[in-house]
Amino acid sequence: MVKRIRDYGYKIGSMKTGKLNKITDVAGIKVGHQTINNGEIHTGVTAILPHGGNIFKEKVMATSHIINGFGKTTGTIQVNELGTIETPILLTNTFNVGACTEALVEYSLEQNPEIARTTGTVNPVVGECNDMLINDIRAMALTKEDAHQSIIQAADDFEEGAVGAGTGMVCFGLKGGIGSSSRILKLQHGTYMVGVLVLSNFGQLEHFTLAGTHIGPEVKAKIQAESESDKGSIMVVVATDLPVTERQLDRIIKRSSAGIARTGSFYGNGSGDIVIGFSTANKIAHENNGQLQTVKAIHEDDIDQAFQGVAEATEEAILNSMVTAQTTVGRNGKQIHSLSQFLIN
Amino acid sequence: MVKRIRDYGYKIGSMKTGKLNKITDVAGIKVGHQTINNGEIHTGVTAILPHGGNIFKEKVMATSHIINGFGKTTGTIQVNELGTIETPILLTNTFNVGACTEALVEYSLEQNPEIARTTGTVNPVVGECNDMLINDIRAMALTKEDAHQSIIQAADDFEEGAVGAGTGMVCFGLKGGIGSSSRILKLQHGTYMVGVLVLSNFGQLEHFTLAGTHIGPEVKAKIQAESESDKGSIMVVVATDLPVTERQLDRIIKRSSAGIARTGSFYGNGSGDIVIGFSTANKIAHENNGQLQTVKAIHEDDIDQAFQGVAEATEEAILNSMVTAQTTVGRNGKQIHSLSQFLIN
Amino acid sequence: MVKRIRDYGYKIGSMKTGKLNKITDVAGIKVGHQTINNGEIHTGVTAILPHGGNIFKEKVMATSHIINGFGKTTGTIQVNELGTIETPILLTNTFNVGACTEALVEYSLEQNPEIARTTGTVNPVVGECNDMLINDIRAMALTKEDAHQSIIQAADDFEEGAVGAGTGMVCFGLKGGIGSSSRILKLQHGTYMVGVLVLSNFGQLEHFTLAGTHIGPEVKAKIQAESESDKGSIMVVVATDLPVTERQLDRIIKRSSAGIARTGSFYGNGSGDIVIGFSTANKIAHENNGQLQTVKAIHEDDIDQAFQGVAEATEEAILNSMVTAQTTVGRNGKQIHSLSQFLIN
Amino acid sequence: MVKRIRDYGYKIGSMKTGKLNKITDVAGIKVGHQTINNGEIHTGVTAILPHGGNIFKEKVMATSHIINGFGKTTGTIQVNELGTIETPILLTNTFNVGACTEALVEYSLEQNPEIARTTGTVNPVVGECNDMLINDIRAMALTKEDAHQSIIQAADDFEEGAVGAGTGMVCFGLKGGIGSSSRILKLQHGTYMVGVLVLSNFGQLEHFTLAGTHIGPEVKAKIQAESESDKGSIMVVVATDLPVTERQLDRIIKRSSAGIARTGSFYGNGSGDIVIGFSTANKIAHENNGQLQTVKAIHEDDIDQAFQGVAEATEEAILNSMVTAQTTVGRNGKQIHSLSQFLIN
Repeated sequence: MVKRIRDYGYKIGSMKTGKLNKITDVAGIKVGHQTINNGEIHTGVTAILPHGGNIFKEKVMATSHIINGFGKTTGTIQVNELGTIETPILLTNTFNVGACTEALVEYSLEQNPEIARTTGTVNPVVGECNDMLINDIRAMALTKEDAHQSIIQAADDFEEGAVGAGTGMVCFGLKGGIGSSSRILKLQHGTYMVGVLVLSNFGQLEHFTLAGTHIGPEVKAKIQAESESDKGSIMVVVATDLPVTERQLDRIIKRSSAGIARTGSFYGNGSGDIVIGFSTANKIAHENNGQLQTVKAIHEDDIDQAFQGVAEATEEAILNSMVTAQTTVGRNGKQIHSLSQFLIN
Repeated sequence: MVKRIRDYGYKIGSMKTGKLNKITDVAGIKVGHQTINNGEIHTGVTAILPHGGNIFKEKVMATSHIINGFGKTTGTIQVNELGTIETPILLTNTFNVGACTEALVEYSLEQNPEIARTTGTVNPVVGECNDMLINDIRAMALTKEDAHQSIIQAADDFEEGAVGAGTGMVCFGLKGGIGSSSRILKLQHGTYMVGVLVLSNFGQLEHFTLAGTHIGPEVKAKIQAESESDKGSIMVVVATDLPVTERQLDRIIKRSSAGIARTGSFYGNGSGDIVIGFSTANKIAHENNGQLQTVKAIHEDDIDQAFQGVAEATEEAILNSMVTAQTTVGRNGKQIHSLSQFLIN
Repeated sequence: MVKRIRDYGYKIGSMKTGKLNKITDVAGIKVGHQTINNGEIHTGVTAILPHGGNIFKEKVMATSHIINGFGKTTGTIQVNELGTIETPILLTNTFNVGACTEALVEYSLEQNPEIARTTGTVNPVVGECNDMLINDIRAMALTKEDAHQSIIQAADDFEEGAVGAGTGMVCFGLKGGIGSSSRILKLQHGTYMVGVLVLSNFGQLEHFTLAGTHIGPEVKAKIQAESESDKGSIMVVVATDLPVTERQLDRIIKRSSAGIARTGSFYGNGSGDIVIGFSTANKIAHENNGQLQTVKAIHEDDIDQAFQGVAEATEEAILNSMVTAQTTVGRNGKQIHSLSQFLIN
Repeated sequence: MVKRIRDYGYKIGSMKTGKLNKITDVAGIKVGHQTINNGEIHTGVTAILPHGGNIFKEKVMATSHIINGFGKTTGTIQVNELGTIETPILLTNTFNVGACTEALVEYSLEQNPEIARTTGTVNPVVGECNDMLINDIRAMALTKEDAHQSIIQAADDFEEGAVGAGTGMVCFGLKGGIGSSSRILKLQHGTYMVGVLVLSNFGQLEHFTLAGTHIGPEVKAKIQAESESDKGSIMVVVATDLPVTERQLDRIIKRSSAGIARTGSFYGNGSGDIVIGFSTANKIAHENNGQLQTVKAIHEDDIDQAFQGVAEATEEAILNSMVTAQTTVGRNGKQIHSLSQFLIN
């Protein structure tokens, strides 16, 4: 059983988590990984499915937010314009965005014979981080088939750490990767969930802050690490079942930047910090039924819990991604340590 | 009876107009003017009321769009963040934005004793153009009382041309001011209206294009005008009763830029081209009733009529503002001609 | 010799064009096409090279602007954040963005062995339109090798119309594709050039406006076309050698929306209207030399010519794309007519 | 001598501060306050002068960033479009934005007789927070003369805490107001300064975090405070002498959001969190001299120190604003405690 950050006694924030304390606490969401470890290749792909049905036919309300745009995420232009996601979201390494884009097109074409025949095209959404410190990213090793596999393997529960897209990632000079967390929102009209999944690959060790304690310099001294500029990135995927409009959703997902800052980051120049978010509460049918649509949305005065939940869950998801990832040997032969080494069990 | 552009035989676009062919064809909207002509002072203020009730307590869904931000409009930051307008919209000259801002605060305080006591503050929305060619704008002559008067005088029908905020405006080197137009949207689930009101004060005569015909150079030759750079601006207010989300509304109001372009503008450097829009279909209560809100919205496939309607109505509103404004003597003693002089009656 | 819109007697705007009246009038820019016509496959790729050297090592100042984001263009997040383009720009069909993304990564890796070893990664820029009416886009027929070929074939002059990425495009119900135009800017401190290249695939025939004359309905009657909603798109690439900051460049490229509007478009819902622009005047070295950089830039009062030039050149580039593209048989067996059929020679 | 947060032994971040550890460490910047304490009136205005000369004639490069737009700041539309600030920046209470806007227009007209005669208008920049908990804001007590006084009194050093615009502000349920801090940037080509001034009026006590330690709940228990939703705001003014382009400046000032987050905020719904920034390194002449301008700018690889400096200085400025503000009695008779009460001297 892999220990997560709460298992070490660290509690992030004050709100209650969902059952798994993962993004899949939001009902219907599935996550799958395909991991490649083969010689110099240590990379992978992670799929987030907003629901188990045909996502093209039944889209989810979505938006994206750029904290720092030093990144190659694709698909966000249309997500923001139309307010929907219509494919699984894939996360991978920087140079395999092309392969994942093609895989999502093929996946959508297979499921929807009407695409580009009797209806328009489809908008693939792929996020990325640069795993060059561990993975031979120049080999562009990931295939479309790998991307398909990540979708197929998607399930209600999933591994964190050095798995899927997280395989080769480095965060605050320690091993990073996939992490997740969730928070419960209690409003007068119901109980809702917000979940976050991160692909963490950002930050400099000297700035690392664990639950408010600035332990980076101490850890750095222990492992005699050299300073490196922040050339990483973080992808944040926010999911919720809270009924909102696109404007409200946009406000909510932006709060992940507070969670990132609390781990010690100032959104470094070289770090592509990008957030993609969706709500499953209001599904949007591809086909126009000729009727007015009904969008359920909270009153704005009820939005603060979602703000706080996203900030808390982002911070905890980052810490989970680090503490669950095991020490790894990088391409240059240097060890990339796990945060878990420096915590008291 | 002042003739409008259709009375001269020019038909803009292909969609049907509302009854008045003005923004007040959208049910509930009222427009009022206060005009000041006094020595060197030729200016005013125009109020657009989204509905006849207490706008603070019952807000309208709103957004704004910057085509070219060389302008001093105030209030749009909060309009975009919260998606609502909660005061009348005032249009005036550049240096009286402060007075109009104060007037809107006072108006709201008077109507709502709970503001800044048991609830928060209020966000005044004021747009402006620079009327220095006709008005002694440095005198800052407009008072808070003038602004109050424009609100009080708001009615279902209203004058166009050199009236209210339009009193001192110049458009394409000819007399500009207030103009309006509307279009009917026919969808399967109902008939809706989109209306536009402009305060026109932009453009160089040599670029002026009337219903597709580039007549600017010819008019320029007739009046022996000198070339001047575009130091004007245009404020566009878009209103609709179409049920939409804030994202859809934002997409709709942006299309006013197509209407502006068709009159010959390329959104000149010195022209603050700013659009404020609202939908009366989904009112937003200030007080949280503890329940989920229901937002009615069109399917995205039904949005093109609103796009086209805004483009057409913006072009026509500009032409109406010009053709209804009479020839005026500017501050430098030079005549600012009316477009109507150059049209065959 | 293929006739362009000026050869039919239509003059767009009032500014002088460059020698070729193409984007390659901006010194150093090269454009190349790879065209595929093979059974049901009628598609291709077009490469725009900002200069003839190593673009990764010597980047050009760049920005992008979304007029309507119903599109799948990739790379713009980083372009906007860092203000640079560091690869050739590729234009292609919607489903081959992935292949072109991979091709640009490979091209950059080959030229720059330090990428992802001693320096960071590279940001591929790929734009697209949906050519499903003519091309069997579901076949995803374009290969990485095709993309490479388009780069290799880039030259100072290039064909317009149904070539490269333009092969299968449809514009205002007529044949569209690649078109280009340029304008000369005369300022006190020098003479500069602005050039535009479009991939035109947007608009409904009933709205088509030729140099101010609304001829769409007449043409539509002649060919007995049915109404179709606008499911196309337009990619606009703006290039200049005018010295500007990124903020100024952003203002300049936005003016292409005025040119698009003048052809009759209101930026339809289904049309991804996206602009990518760069200036060759200020190159940005990848390597930090430890010194302050010097950016040459115009005074803001000198920007209007560039605004007007982009608006004019965009309108003319669209018309050139249409008039140079020959009549083609679409996938459904219906003819897609050339605009040239309806013009007097 | 008022003690600041470092005087209590708290060191924020790792970078060196300037001599005063205030925004005025950036050479040329002056800050002035006008404070009103009169019966129920406890409010004021604070002026930040980018330099001591004629700001309209010699503008500073500027930009603004909206973290959370629940605010009534005015002037940012033009700041972002043109990349300049051309007046002093005034901070005040929400309902006196109008008076301050008028004061800035008058100030500019007086200094520049050519405004609105031979040149265009002027863009006043005014930020605000809601001081209703302490001040009778409905009285709109601040006059234009008060605003003028704040400009006249601007000097190289200035007070913090409950002074000027900070007089009536509340931060994390404790007394807030004006605070400042600075950081030194050491690059190969020179030494530069970044300074931050905040008007703090945001946050809920239960979230307050002091230099990484979450002391809010403990303080809350001591003073038996009730929970209140965040109805405040924070205005952040960032100044630097680092040579940058507008795009780089925009990236830099955004990092203040990291500093805010580290004090415990998640940018609550009701909190208008707005940043205005400028660089004095590249002044922009109002008059066009007909020549190309030269903008000095850092290489992007040198930007991280400025990012970190803004994050650190923002956090420290907030803490300074709190610890220097003395305990005050609010309008409802309840004490608003000073943070200094809870720190060991």
